[in-house]
Amino acid sequence: MSSREGTINFNRGIPAPEAIPVGAAREAASSIFEGDGKTVLEYCDSRGYPPLRGKIAEDYEGVTADGILLSNGSLQLLDLIARLYLGDGKVVVVERPTYDRAITIFERAGAKVKGVDLEDGGINVEGLEEAFAEYHPELYYTIPDFQNPTGATTTTKKRKKVAWLLDGYDVKAVEDSPYRRLRYSGETRPSLRSFNAESVIQTSSFSKLVSPGVRVGWLVADSSMVNKIATCAEDTYISPNILGQGIVTQLIKNGWLEENIERLKSLYRPRLQATLENLEKYFPKANWVEAEGGFFVGVWLPDGKRSDLFYEKARSRGLVLTSPLGFFPDKGGGSFLRLPFPALTPKEIESGIKRIAEVWKDLG
Amino acid sequence: MSSREGTINFNRGIPAPEAIPVGAAREAASSIFEGDGKTVLEYCDSRGYPPLRGKIAEDYEGVTADGILLSNGSLQLLDLIARLYLGDGKVVVVERPTYDRAITIFERAGAKVKGVDLEDGGINVEGLEEAFAEYHPELYYTIPDFQNPTGATTTTKKRKKVAWLLDGYDVKAVEDSPYRRLRYSGETRPSLRSFNAESVIQTSSFSKLVSPGVRVGWLVADSSMVNKIATCAEDTYISPNILGQGIVTQLIKNGWLEENIERLKSLYRPRLQATLENLEKYFPKANWVEAEGGFFVGVWLPDGKRSDLFYEKARSRGLVLTSPLGFFPDKGGGSFLRLPFPALTPKEIESGIKRIAEVWKDLG
Repeated sequence: MSSREGTINFNRGIPAPEAIPVGAAREAASSIFEGDGKTVLEYCDSRGYPPLRGKIAEDYEGVTADGILLSNGSLQLLDLIARLYLGDGKVVVVERPTYDRAITIFERAGAKVKGVDLEDGGINVEGLEEAFAEYHPELYYTIPDFQNPTGATTTTKKRKKVAWLLDGYDVKAVEDSPYRRLRYSGETRPSLRSFNAESVIQTSSFSKLVSPGVRVGWLVADSSMVNKIATCAEDTYISPNILGQGIVTQLIKNGWLEENIERLKSLYRPRLQATLENLEKYFPKANWVEAEGGFFVGVWLPDGKRSDLFYEKARSRGLVLTSPLGFFPDKGGGSFLRLPFPALTPKEIESGIKRIAEVWKDLG
Repeated sequence: MSSREGTINFNRGIPAPEAIPVGAAREAASSIFEGDGKTVLEYCDSRGYPPLRGKIAEDYEGVTADGILLSNGSLQLLDLIARLYLGDGKVVVVERPTYDRAITIFERAGAKVKGVDLEDGGINVEGLEEAFAEYHPELYYTIPDFQNPTGATTTTKKRKKVAWLLDGYDVKAVEDSPYRRLRYSGETRPSLRSFNAESVIQTSSFSKLVSPGVRVGWLVADSSMVNKIATCAEDTYISPNILGQGIVTQLIKNGWLEENIERLKSLYRPRLQATLENLEKYFPKANWVEAEGGFFVGVWLPDGKRSDLFYEKARSRGLVLTSPLGFFPDKGGGSFLRLPFPALTPKEIESGIKRIAEVWKDLG
């Protein structure tokens, strides 16, 4: 790495440091101690803090607090779901590539993870139907909005088709949607759950909307599923982190959350733009997703160059990336790279993408 | 249930409502946001908040922060340990009776749970050696101080013997010690870990010393074990609840924690005394543990009457107990009852024990 170049961290999907709301969280904590201090400091219902369950339910048609479960971040929810529904070699179908930590969770639970190729507009639906027919999976795991790691958003048409396939093949889906509210352009699509509430468990999180440290994820499902997951949660950690849930409740009640989502969009929109523009400017031969929101732009290296080799070489140029192998259930990696942009300034993004194009050229 | 009698809840090991420190926690939260707000609101090391790991390490000879791991309560730690060390029919030996949630955790991980009888002064050591020889267990789970559910404390002599058996039979132990600091009379015994630091993972929690809602448990182990558990933790929930850990750090730094432990002892000492005295007064035929600390007094019904039948009958007299079956790996229950006393006033304790003796008499 040449001395004039700083390290560019393209390796984690974390919020911008300036988006961590210390003042708002401190005030919210103070209010919640004032108003409901004993509750947030005691053991509680393993489904989570009732006022927040109620508030979240308001955003979903026909859902009451009984259909909401809160946990210590949404990965913990995925782990509870995997424990209950997977295991013993049961099959889960995922988008290929997908969120690396989800693959780890599923494999640890004992599941077989089968990937179906993701395209620009979402899953390859024919491939998905074939996988359903061949493997009789228990679950389909999907991130329809601004997918991790590609940034791709599933079209409305494909969502409808997937919702229909779930019924036809008797498969449940986990619709993971932590980025859904962070759309920087274009129109919001109806959720997968809106087309098939019975078969879809929707999960989400305040990690990207408030901050990761509050450790609050939620899921929406029918109440019998919620109760089953709640028992598993109680057997794992008794109660979730209620204080964080109280802070979030306060931030919703006082209107801060909605304002913050607008602030985040204003902060991240130019960063996404910088990512797409600099790819066009420095690396036009590459393929990438024209993401409209979220945290990531997925890039495919041209000329069939392998991203695992790229990953090693990039390190020596001060480019820190997430290993591409983890995003593929077959640990293939192909020619894929994930570029998370929210925690980088447009200038850092330009410098990083310029270097990516150079490393690619040097790769031979 | 007659109308003059209120319900007496002998069913959960929870702190007294008046011991929930709303004011202190609020101030501590405010200070931690002030001093280290960005850190507690971001993702962090899955081993937990470094300043708290350092503070806890100071209480252990020869241990640095590298030997400490923090999680969302100590049950979550037990779950991580079970996932790593048990499973596939591996054997864990436990005291009989033991903490019901621990049995659930072990069985869910796929372990076989074998019980060895607990006596007044701790485990039956001959029985333990036989179990080690017969089952070649992976783990021994023990609560040497004021055991849940019996209140029994293991003698120093037995701790030494157990430490020696662990080496002889190549077994690791989990020493669960959430009540250790809450001794109301008598002398503190050396921990099991102090006799065999290599084979013992010690776990504990601030749930009883600060409040359950802070959701902070810790473990002490050698650093390679800590790192292995930390990877499993990261794969489960990325980061633990750092805000709660920050609050606890602050409460240790400003001297509140040590003062609070003294306050708790003053609050709970007369409640334990009331429990023991009223057993003597109303139910002298029963056997019970002369507990010297913690949250529980274990009682055995005389004349071989069965506690599962008692449990049902007691409900109709407004006595809420924890089902005795869960404390026994064989779901036997025997004639055992667990009486948690901290959240009841001496008057409620007297009324409850009087009723227990009456229900026993009616049981036939």
